[in-house]
Amino acid sequence: MLELGDRIAVTKDGIRREGVLMPSVSGRVVIKMDSGYNAGFDPERATVELVAKGKALKIPPPPPPPRREGLPKVSILSTGGTIASKVDYRTGAVTSQFSAEEIISSIPELLEIANYEGKVIYNILSENMKAEYWQELARAVGSEIEKGADGVIVTHGTDTMTYTAAALSFMIKTPVPIVLVGSQRSSDRPSSDAAMNAISAAAVATSDIAEVTVVMHGTSSDGFCLVHRGTRVRKMHTSRRDAFQSINQHPIARVDYPSRDIVILGEHRRRGEVELEVKDGLEPRCALVKYFPGASPDLFEHYITSGYRGIVLEGTGLGHVASDWVGAIKTASDAGIPVVITSQCLRGRICDRVYDTGRDILAAGGIEGGDILPEVALVKLMWALANTSAVDEAEALMKAPIAGEISPSTPTTV
Amino acid sequence: MLELGDRIAVTKDGIRREGVLMPSVSGRVVIKMDSGYNAGFDPERATVELVAKGKALKIPPPPPPPRREGLPKVSILSTGGTIASKVDYRTGAVTSQFSAEEIISSIPELLEIANYEGKVIYNILSENMKAEYWQELARAVGSEIEKGADGVIVTHGTDTMTYTAAALSFMIKTPVPIVLVGSQRSSDRPSSDAAMNAISAAAVATSDIAEVTVVMHGTSSDGFCLVHRGTRVRKMHTSRRDAFQSINQHPIARVDYPSRDIVILGEHRRRGEVELEVKDGLEPRCALVKYFPGASPDLFEHYITSGYRGIVLEGTGLGHVASDWVGAIKTASDAGIPVVITSQCLRGRICDRVYDTGRDILAAGGIEGGDILPEVALVKLMWALANTSAVDEAEALMKAPIAGEISPSTPTTV
Repeated sequence: MLELGDRIAVTKDGIRREGVLMPSVSGRVVIKMDSGYNAGFDPERATVELVAKGKALKIPPPPPPPRREGLPKVSILSTGGTIASKVDYRTGAVTSQFSAEEIISSIPELLEIANYEGKVIYNILSENMKAEYWQELARAVGSEIEKGADGVIVTHGTDTMTYTAAALSFMIKTPVPIVLVGSQRSSDRPSSDAAMNAISAAAVATSDIAEVTVVMHGTSSDGFCLVHRGTRVRKMHTSRRDAFQSINQHPIARVDYPSRDIVILGEHRRRGEVELEVKDGLEPRCALVKYFPGASPDLFEHYITSGYRGIVLEGTGLGHVASDWVGAIKTASDAGIPVVITSQCLRGRICDRVYDTGRDILAAGGIEGGDILPEVALVKLMWALANTSAVDEAEALMKAPIAGEISPSTPTTV
Repeated sequence: MLELGDRIAVTKDGIRREGVLMPSVSGRVVIKMDSGYNAGFDPERATVELVAKGKALKIPPPPPPPRREGLPKVSILSTGGTIASKVDYRTGAVTSQFSAEEIISSIPELLEIANYEGKVIYNILSENMKAEYWQELARAVGSEIEKGADGVIVTHGTDTMTYTAAALSFMIKTPVPIVLVGSQRSSDRPSSDAAMNAISAAAVATSDIAEVTVVMHGTSSDGFCLVHRGTRVRKMHTSRRDAFQSINQHPIARVDYPSRDIVILGEHRRRGEVELEVKDGLEPRCALVKYFPGASPDLFEHYITSGYRGIVLEGTGLGHVASDWVGAIKTASDAGIPVVITSQCLRGRICDRVYDTGRDILAAGGIEGGDILPEVALVKLMWALANTSAVDEAEALMKAPIAGEISPSTPTTV
């Protein structure tokens, strides 16, 4: 069994190369050769043998960077994901654990922006994220702010980053910027976006935008990053660097690169406008159900009998489901399980007052989701149910804007 | 109990108006007054009384339009939806049933393009669509083509139009154009898109684009419609007229308006290239499951014990779900239930070979969906399971392009 750090030999097309087995997120076998260069191999087209068990590669972490007077303090909290593995990969560390020192030593521009404190909160694949991790993260972010951080950066895998951004948005009232950042391209690709995203995130973390935001590439080239509100952003492409888009709202700002100038594009809460408050309650027994033609309403029964406390429906168009689902919505509502109506169109608003089906859904107790994203509605429902004692209070919370996630009218230009 | 066609009086703000109760899709009470004008009222702010039971309003259908020599034959099949109610509403008929004569008499430009045969296949709200209706529709379309139609137009509610378009795409090999069309705006709004969409659909139905397509507004103004492949289109906004977008592929063509010039933008199958073939089998016991952080894999158990035959998973990012879902995927696969992996990003490709989770999903039996849309994968799985006798054949079908729904590489510009 080969382990990271082992010295191995890779033979491909008759050529044998020796080196130290490195972490890899591409599925390729990557070795650091004695020359200092890395080489990657398709494991199905090369043979691999152990030369010596690893130990030699316990590279000591780089020394902490010098503190510069007068710069703001930014905390970097790591949760895992490509951005963390990439940085490790570059620096040659054998673990995919992240440290602020490592990220800074590989992206020296960061030192011009702030002094940093780094913490590993956990190191998981972002698809394994769940409510209890969001809560742990919210408490950690709150603690950094209490201790005087002028801004917090959370590095995160991109797959579920927007769910986490929404969760932090509801759980934390923040007087300082809280910025989620990740990268879409692993470091063995020339198109890596990690450095530019991290630098832009640091610029936002030291700016006046005191909200939970997601900062990622704005185009597929390197001209600028966009600053998205944490409750209005969605990953809209599996692999593009500009996969993240604001939905039903313009981005809050643009960070030009490499100048780091921040151009404000929309309203935002300013630094110090509110006091820090962390309400980290979440009810995890909530489900997001996507409707499709012919879908059986039995699914509701499954969730009700399994003890679920809330359901978000992704209906069609303006928020419709088949007529035979209306009874199921009523059963759930009558049982004290709020059912929030959103749209699988993603863009635009729910309006259940235009067609008969919509009016029937409302009569059955369905809660109109306005222009909230389905995924954000799910996270908000978890939060609303944990922060209220009665269903009608939770319903009222769902209809009220808490963190910019819903608005009485949606601009037609987004 | 008031019925459409009854003569009623509506009193609002002390003013009493008489007229005939008309169909309405806006939730307002609409009457046709003796002047010929319609008026609409908020039912909560007006009082309504019956003057005389309806009968007077049995308006005879308009006479069939004159046939013109030399024009192609187009069949118009109606399934319900806003486009049908709008036309009725305009002509003043008391039923929301559609007839070709009615649509043509309200949009005279259509007569310049073709001679028409009209049929009401059913008249339902599109959210009530399901597999057996798709099958009925496929047979009806096939029958029109057999009888010599040069093109078929299907009018459809917009909410589930793309599911139906995908279903027809898999079920029918067609030598002539099959065009789905609808409208986003009901006729009491000045911005109605019904006429331009219908005219553009007729242009495509008489063109060389012999595929199942969706023809809808291309922008929020009236410059052109877009022709989307039936397996590559999605409703991406609840209310905008240009809600329909091609995903992971450029639209096939643009229809300029009012010139009706068709500008080809992508590859397409030509008229007469294949013989008509209708394979209308569908296995309705298939489910589309959207993954979310913390989602319980128990959902799989529900579907397995409920006798489902296939599952499409909408994973995060490149096609990921939490590690505790991998066992559930294996259980389903081992039980002969294919599990197809797609992405809730919608745009881009699944790639389960890059990260550990993806490789675990594949090892558990998950089937990579490539760049297929989740909703299209659901419909295709229904079709694949009905047209094969073994699970591995269905799996092979899911991976092969049948109707342009999946491709070995996705252009980066879409």
